Amino acid sequence: MESEGYTDHISRQFNEELDEVRSRTLEMGGLVESQVANAVHSLIELDVAKAEDVRAKDDAVNQMEIMIDEECARILARRQPAASDLRLVLMTTKIISDLERIGDESSKIALHAVGLAESGDETRGFIEIRHLGAHVGQMVHDALDAFARMDTQQALRVAQEDKKVDLEYGSALREMMSVMIEDPRSISRTINVIWALRSLERIGDHARNIAEHVVYLVKGQDVRHVGLTEMENRIQD
Amino acid sequence: MESEGYTDHISRQFNEELDEVRSRTLEMGGLVESQVANAVHSLIELDVAKAEDVRAKDDAVNQMEIMIDEECARILARRQPAASDLRLVLMTTKIISDLERIGDESSKIALHAVGLAESGDETRGFIEIRHLGAHVGQMVHDALDAFARMDTQQALRVAQEDKKVDLEYGSALREMMSVMIEDPRSISRTINVIWALRSLERIGDHARNIAEHVVYLVKGQDVRHVGLTEMENRIQD
Repeated sequence: MESEGYTDHISRQFNEELDEVRSRTLEMGGLVESQVANAVHSLIELDVAKAEDVRAKDDAVNQMEIMIDEECARILARRQPAASDLRLVLMTTKIISDLERIGDESSKIALHAVGLAESGDETRGFIEIRHLGAHVGQMVHDALDAFARMDTQQALRVAQEDKKVDLEYGSALREMMSVMIEDPRSISRTINVIWALRSLERIGDHARNIAEHVVYLVKGQDVRHVGLTEMENRIQD
Repeated sequence: MESEGYTDHISRQFNEELDEVRSRTLEMGGLVESQVANAVHSLIELDVAKAEDVRAKDDAVNQMEIMIDEECARILARRQPAASDLRLVLMTTKIISDLERIGDESSKIALHAVGLAESGDETRGFIEIRHLGAHVGQMVHDALDAFARMDTQQALRVAQEDKKVDLEYGSALREMMSVMIEDPRSISRTINVIWALRSLERIGDHARNIAEHVVYLVKGQDVRHVGLTEMENRIQD
């Protein structure tokens, strides 16, 4: 967990505070990762108990964001960090905001799982949900891994995956539109699947945001909105 | 634009930097407000030129976020602000992130406007779009006003309106579901309307987030996820 840039502080206490913030962020990330996986499983297994568990745990995610944000504000006020320490604190507040939103989207997916379970039978679209869910789950994992290891190449790969997720999402959506047109009685159920797909696509966006924050943290380069090729260039600089 | 808390700095230059950040944020807010209004108009008027203008201007919104974020990081590094100045800088970085996402949602609405315009006739749901669009447009305006005047009561009203928006959104959505079930040929057009409604609902959420950041800025109280009654209590403390 230690990296070169964070070892030469006058204050050992300050070092510990920064490490604490990083490890709490990774802990929050771990919880959010499991929320994504459980939300997807609750939906494709129509498992109401699991869906309700996801919804209940969303509050823990929210509380972690508030706690880490407080800790970051305290460090800024007391320690007045500079350079890479300042970037760590600032990017942490951004990363936890994306994590919190991933938690929100997981909670929404769980809500649609309950809706689908209540109305009975299996619905078309579960294969797409499983596929997209596994893909964005991996992205969240890799984005957190990029943060843990300050790995900009890993961050770049997450951004690249997001493009693929967008294509898969578009194709799944067209499929669901055909399902509704073929069988209008399926509309209200299929809409639940569409919302879940949308939430998964959003989770991919947030994983990409986290990856971009990691690049800024390591390189001091803002790569939001620049496109993949330019992102790659700035990482290699 | 000056308020009591920000007048007793040793450095006049520092004061000017903080004022600059606030006024740039309000400028970004003004642009985002007009993006919301223009996106809604482009959709209900099926005005492709206006929709394309909204999409083109989204880049300006993104650039403003990056620029203000840079300025905030610079202030933190050089000035090491404390207390209310620190809160101003930290909340500004959060507020501009919500503004950027409101810009994104406006751009998505504009994209659906193009989709609807290309496929021809008017679609049911435009009344709902106009209504919800006006409502959330006002919320964005009021949230920025709360920020400009450091007005926690105004912030509370924005949060209260968000509850109403959620109800209106739910009702509009049910209406659109009936439209699709009654006339399955309208499905692909109606889905565009549903996405636009969803984006408007998200814009309401972001306006509420901005209002919550204003409360933290003024009161030092984190009111995210606490519910309206508790938010009211913390404002009165």
